[in-house]
Order: sequence, then structure tokens, then C-alpha cells
Amino acid sequence: MNDAALDDDLLDDSLAEPGEVGLVEPRDFVSPEPFACDDGRVLPGFTLRYETYGRLNPAGDNAVLVCHALSGDHHCAGIHSLADRKPGWWNNLIGPGKAVDTNALFVVCANVLGGCQGSTGPLSINPATGRPYGLAFPAVTIRDMVRSQKRLLDHLGVKQLRCALGGSMGGMQALQWGIEYPAFCTKILAMATTAREGAQAIAFNEVGRQAILQDPEWNQGNYPRGGGPRVGLAIARMMAHITYLSDASMDRKFGRRTVKDRPGAAPAAPAAPDPAEAAFLGMMGDEGAPATPTAAFDVNFEVQSYLRYQGQSFINRFDANTYLYITRAIDGFDLAASGGGTLEAAFAPVRAETLVVGFTSDWLFPPEQNRAIVLALQRAGKHASYAELATDLGHDSFLLESPELYALVSAFLNRRA
Amino acid sequence: MNDAALDDDLLDDSLAEPGEVGLVEPRDFVSPEPFACDDGRVLPGFTLRYETYGRLNPAGDNAVLVCHALSGDHHCAGIHSLADRKPGWWNNLIGPGKAVDTNALFVVCANVLGGCQGSTGPLSINPATGRPYGLAFPAVTIRDMVRSQKRLLDHLGVKQLRCALGGSMGGMQALQWGIEYPAFCTKILAMATTAREGAQAIAFNEVGRQAILQDPEWNQGNYPRGGGPRVGLAIARMMAHITYLSDASMDRKFGRRTVKDRPGAAPAAPAAPDPAEAAFLGMMGDEGAPATPTAAFDVNFEVQSYLRYQGQSFINRFDANTYLYITRAIDGFDLAASGGGTLEAAFAPVRAETLVVGFTSDWLFPPEQNRAIVLALQRAGKHASYAELATDLGHDSFLLESPELYALVSAFLNRRA
Repeated sequence: MNDAALDDDLLDDSLAEPGEVGLVEPRDFVSPEPFACDDGRVLPGFTLRYETYGRLNPAGDNAVLVCHALSGDHHCAGIHSLADRKPGWWNNLIGPGKAVDTNALFVVCANVLGGCQGSTGPLSINPATGRPYGLAFPAVTIRDMVRSQKRLLDHLGVKQLRCALGGSMGGMQALQWGIEYPAFCTKILAMATTAREGAQAIAFNEVGRQAILQDPEWNQGNYPRGGGPRVGLAIARMMAHITYLSDASMDRKFGRRTVKDRPGAAPAAPAAPDPAEAAFLGMMGDEGAPATPTAAFDVNFEVQSYLRYQGQSFINRFDANTYLYITRAIDGFDLAASGGGTLEAAFAPVRAETLVVGFTSDWLFPPEQNRAIVLALQRAGKHASYAELATDLGHDSFLLESPELYALVSAFLNRRA
Repeated sequence: MNDAALDDDLLDDSLAEPGEVGLVEPRDFVSPEPFACDDGRVLPGFTLRYETYGRLNPAGDNAVLVCHALSGDHHCAGIHSLADRKPGWWNNLIGPGKAVDTNALFVVCANVLGGCQGSTGPLSINPATGRPYGLAFPAVTIRDMVRSQKRLLDHLGVKQLRCALGGSMGGMQALQWGIEYPAFCTKILAMATTAREGAQAIAFNEVGRQAILQDPEWNQGNYPRGGGPRVGLAIARMMAHITYLSDASMDRKFGRRTVKDRPGAAPAAPAAPDPAEAAFLGMMGDEGAPATPTAAFDVNFEVQSYLRYQGQSFINRFDANTYLYITRAIDGFDLAASGGGTLEAAFAPVRAETLVVGFTSDWLFPPEQNRAIVLALQRAGKHASYAELATDLGHDSFLLESPELYALVSAFLNRRA
């Protein structure tokens, strides 16, 4: 096993698949000291749930911090049990002999502050009241996330961060790392990201937030764990999911195929239609209408089933208040504004070597926004380069299998400055 | 006045602005004969609310039928009262001396079957029950819309349709006109449209429908006029509105400006925040949080206000069941499928000369989908041409001021075959 933090007797090298991180276990880092957030509110302390893979070297300088995106978490590689069929979200990139090579590197990934997968966030109990924070939770920023991660790395004994690495919101954190801790952060690898969103990306987040805020179950953010605005959260996720893909990839995956086109197949997604949908499909009772769906209402595109499945599975693992908080943090992220007006000025402190990777079909944080980061770094006299990968898989390209990406990541991490 | 159908004594040529259609009045066409819809259900009769501008010539061959898009209606030009500051939705294109010249042409525009602006739709009373149709309304198709419009044109004495004209869903109707009534339809002018949507456009419509279907106020489609799933409908509209614009135009219009950036200005949009939003902004009471918004939650981008305003104003003029029905009709529109497999075969009956206009920044029905229509018509041996206008205003470009577009429309309508 490659997880230095694990001492469980379940661990046995023979259990790990060749090239796989294998069994991993999340841990909790509890920082007991007060933490002042950018909005002025002070948390009395906080917890970050995290995982590590590989071993920290004696010099403490081989750590890679993986920063996750909006809907990600600390579990970015390996499996949680031998029956676990779904490895961590970046398992294709991270492992022994992979692009982020755990034979050489000590990989750390933590659920962000404000998150809902074990780290302190709106679902956590506010010690001042004994009830969940809800809206009393500070309005966390990307910088708050980064500063809380620094406490974790200090705790783990990391002396020098080899690389801050992430895609999408993870890329924002990686950039912020270089600004906040210039002497500590040796390399930055940011993918499919932006130094600030444009109006369209803000607009999509705003619609998602409104779907949650307007759901009566949201109740001003006061709801029991597992309850809350599930409908609003599912709508937000369905819409956001479209922005993570591309027109071309959706057409290839679904086109206009209807569920009944698939030979002998029920929809991959929810087997039983929900009541509202069933009604819409024509199975209503007393309106004088036929009791069976009519031909025109029978249309049921595969992409519809797929999206509904995405929405449903998301609400079983994510918290609506965290969705509000984290999208707000993303929308508020603006390095130029916080750097005194220009991106170049914001990057003045950076000492890290930076690689930014954009994807041609990413229309959420399009290539020009990725490129602008590198241009500003270069104008500021920094060591920075930009790589653009031609894919038609959209924003989520950074998460998907790509030997080209693996080669870039591996070469960048291994290169000596 | 140019409206041949008007005989009100308010009408006086001196009231009309030069080049403007001026005062107009909607009328109702009641078709008493049964109407069999594509789904097999039969309406006992139907009403179409419509407007006309210009005069039908004695030969009955100078009519242009304007077909509206999802959220449009019959009021495409002129004003309804002298105090009316908002003319019809295509007033820039239609009027005496304009691209669609009402000095020479007789312009007809009707709210579609299934609509909610006066034509028979889910809000209308079902004579069989004495209550609104709701989901008992037939699953109308684009073809149903066109066939109902034919009855109106017959009633008005139109012998030969000079042109079927429309953008987006209006373009779908225009294409269907050429297929359904080849001898009657002389020209087709379709803009920003498609012969069938791709998976992404279906996906966006599906999210909008889910927002409505999952709103408890939807109540299986049974709700009083003016009531219903207002939240769901507003969410659907906000999201759809993003797809009508472009990243570039949103950035130019809003960028990352916050409401407080505008000198001395309250938001153009809702003056008072709704309670949910107020709560989200930090004005909560008993959670131990500050009673005033914190700095980070104070962020309020102009684009957020704008979208909320779009959502709010839409629910005051549109019906949720109509939104479900019409988006279903749009998603189900597939000329190739209904034409025996290929678009070329579907166009076999067409005799009209066709012009399709695409817009470079339209990512809802992108240029390649517009171009594909013309390629299929050309392969089928038809007289068809394609024009692509370079704009950065997105799908809604067809509605916006564009001398280039006006010149194309005018030349196409005036050209003798």
C-alpha cells in the first residue's frame, strides 16, 4: 500500500492491483485554532477530511496537493473496500507509475472548507448554537480553502509543496496557492480553469442557486442532514452537468436516441418514473384523456434519463447549502480584482513554475481564459507555459482518460526546476 | 393604419409614426370544425389569436405568415395603444418601408396552437369537462401548429402564401409549411433554426421541464389561471435565456459588474429581494450570524439581477403547461425521421424557394444545423440558399437590429421567382 497514513491490518501489498493505489482510508485533520475567514467571521476551529497516497520523503518536499472541483471530494484515488467498484475521481491520473506517480510523490487531497464530505461546512454543528451552521457559516472563498489546506500540510510535515494541482475550481485553488504561499509552492498545475469567470458562467451558477433558494424545502438553509431542497439541488446539478460536457460529446453519447430505441433495455437511469413525470407522460386519471401515453408524449430521449439520473444521484451525496456556498466562492474568485486591478499584478508574488492546460471544447472555462492566466504570468516575468489539448469532451476533459494529458502532467511534475 | 383587419375609430393615419405599423388589434379566429392532432386526439375546434398588418391584395397572393418562437406570440409589430411603449417583438423587421414591407405585403401572425396568449392551449376550457384542458390537451406538434395556421389563412382569403417566415421554432414551422403545403407556399425564410435539435438543446429543455414538473404547484398540470408552478417556470426561463445569448454578448453587457458598481443605481431588476434571496444575503435572525450581509455574501452581479428579472417577468405572461407542451413539440421536431429517414427525402415535396439564415454565435441551433437544412434541400434539387451572418449576439440575433439581416430579408421577399 502506498498510503503512508494507513496502519490498518487490512493493508497488504498483495491486495493492490498493479499500478493502482488500492485500499485507502479517509482521515480527519482537526485544527483547533480559530480560523478567520475572508468575510471577517471566525471559525473556532475546523476539520478537513483528507486522504494521502504515497509516502512523504524525509525532506518533506515530495508532496502534491490535489485540489478538487465543485462536486469533488478528498477521495481522488484508490478504493475504500475490496468490494468498492468505483475508485476515487482522479484514479486514472494518480497511482504507482501513473502520471502523478505515488511511488515518488506524496499525494494529499482534502475536502474543501465549506464542503459536505466530512470537512467543516454549513452542515457541521456550530459549537455556539449546537445546531448546524446553515447560513451562519462564513462565506468561504477560494483563498480560505487554500489557507485551511496549508494547516493540513503543515500538520502532515510537508516542508515544501512540490505542486498544487487541480482542475476547474481545483485550478483556482492551485493558482491561489502560488500567490498565497510563494516560497512554499514550487509548481502549479492548473487545468480547465479561469482567473475569473465571465458573465455566462456566473449566470449558470445563479440559476442553480435560485433553483435551490426557491425550493420551499430550503427553508432559509435550515434543514436536517439528508433533507433539504432535493428538487432544487437536482435541477441545479442537471443544468450544471450540461455545461461540463460539450454539444459534440452529448450528440455522440445520446444523439436523439429514445429509451425505446435501445434493444431490450430499460433506461440506465431511474427505472420507475417519478409521479410528476408519469403524469406528464399521459397517465392521468380524470381529465378525459387517454389512460395510456399518447404517441407524441411517449418521446423519451436517453439524454433525459441520463440527466435525471445525474440529478438524483447527486442529491444523495451532496448538500444544498454547500452548493450555494461553493458556487458563490467560485463566482467571487477574481484574481485581478483581489490583486489590485490586473492579473499581472496579482501574480507578482508567484515563484512557482506554472503549467496551465486548457481544452479546446471547454465552453465553461474556455481556452482563452486558460491562456490569459499564462499570458499574465509571463508578462509578470514568471516561468509559465500553456498547453491546449484538442478534445471534444468539454470542461470535464481534465477528468477523462487522456494519454496526452498524462504525458504533460508526468513531464511537468518530474522536471527539475 | 396598415392593419386591414381593423375598423376601430381610434384608427387614423396621422397617429402612425412614419415607417411604423402603428396601432394594431389582435383578433380571434374560431375554427368550429374538429381538428385531429398528430397524436390522435381530436380537438372539437380551436381558436387562434392573430394580428395582421398591411392589406391582402385582390389576388390573395401577397401574404407573409410570421411564425413565432417558443416564448413569442401573435403580436409581432405595432402597438396596442398610444401609451404602449413596447411594440411587437419583430417590429424592427416589419412595417411600411421595412424589410417585411407592409405597404406591399399582408402580414399575418398567430399565437400557436397550444399557446397561452389567446390561442387554444392547455389553459383553455375543455368543453368535455368544463375545466381547463391541462394535460388532457393533445401533444401538439410543429405540424399541428402549421395545419391550424392553414385554416386561418384560408379564412382570411389567402390564395397563395408569399412566404412562411420565422426564427427558431418559427423557422421549424416555416420549413414544415413548405413540406405540408408545397403548392400553397411560395417561399420559406427560416432563421436560427434546425431540422432537429441535438442532445444538448434537448437537455436544456429537459431541465426546464423538470423545474416545472417538480414544482409542487404544478400539481399534475391542474392549477388556476395565473397560478401554477411559478418558481419552476421562472427557473426554466432563466436557464433558457442564457442559451439565447452568447458568452461574448453577456460579457459585454454585464461582465462581472456588481449592482453596486453602477453609479447611484438600484438594480434594473426586482427592487426588493425576495425573502429567500434576502436570507441568502445574510439577513437571517437566530443563527448567531451577523444581521447584515457579510462582505463575501454582498456580491451581487448585474447578470444575476437581470436573470431574475427575466424569470419574474416571464411568469407574469406565460403558462407553465404551455411551456411543457411547446418545448416537447420542439424536441420532437425531426424532419428527417418524419420524412422516412433522411432530410433530403423529407424535403422531396417542397416547391418553395428557401432561404435559411444562420448566425455565427448561435450555440443553441448552431450554424452547421442551419447549413444542413440547405444542403439537404439542394441535394433534393430544390431552390435553396444559405446565408450566415457574423454576429456575437447568439441565438436571439434574428430578433435584433441588423441592417445586414434586413437587406437579406427584403431582397428575398421582393425577388420574383
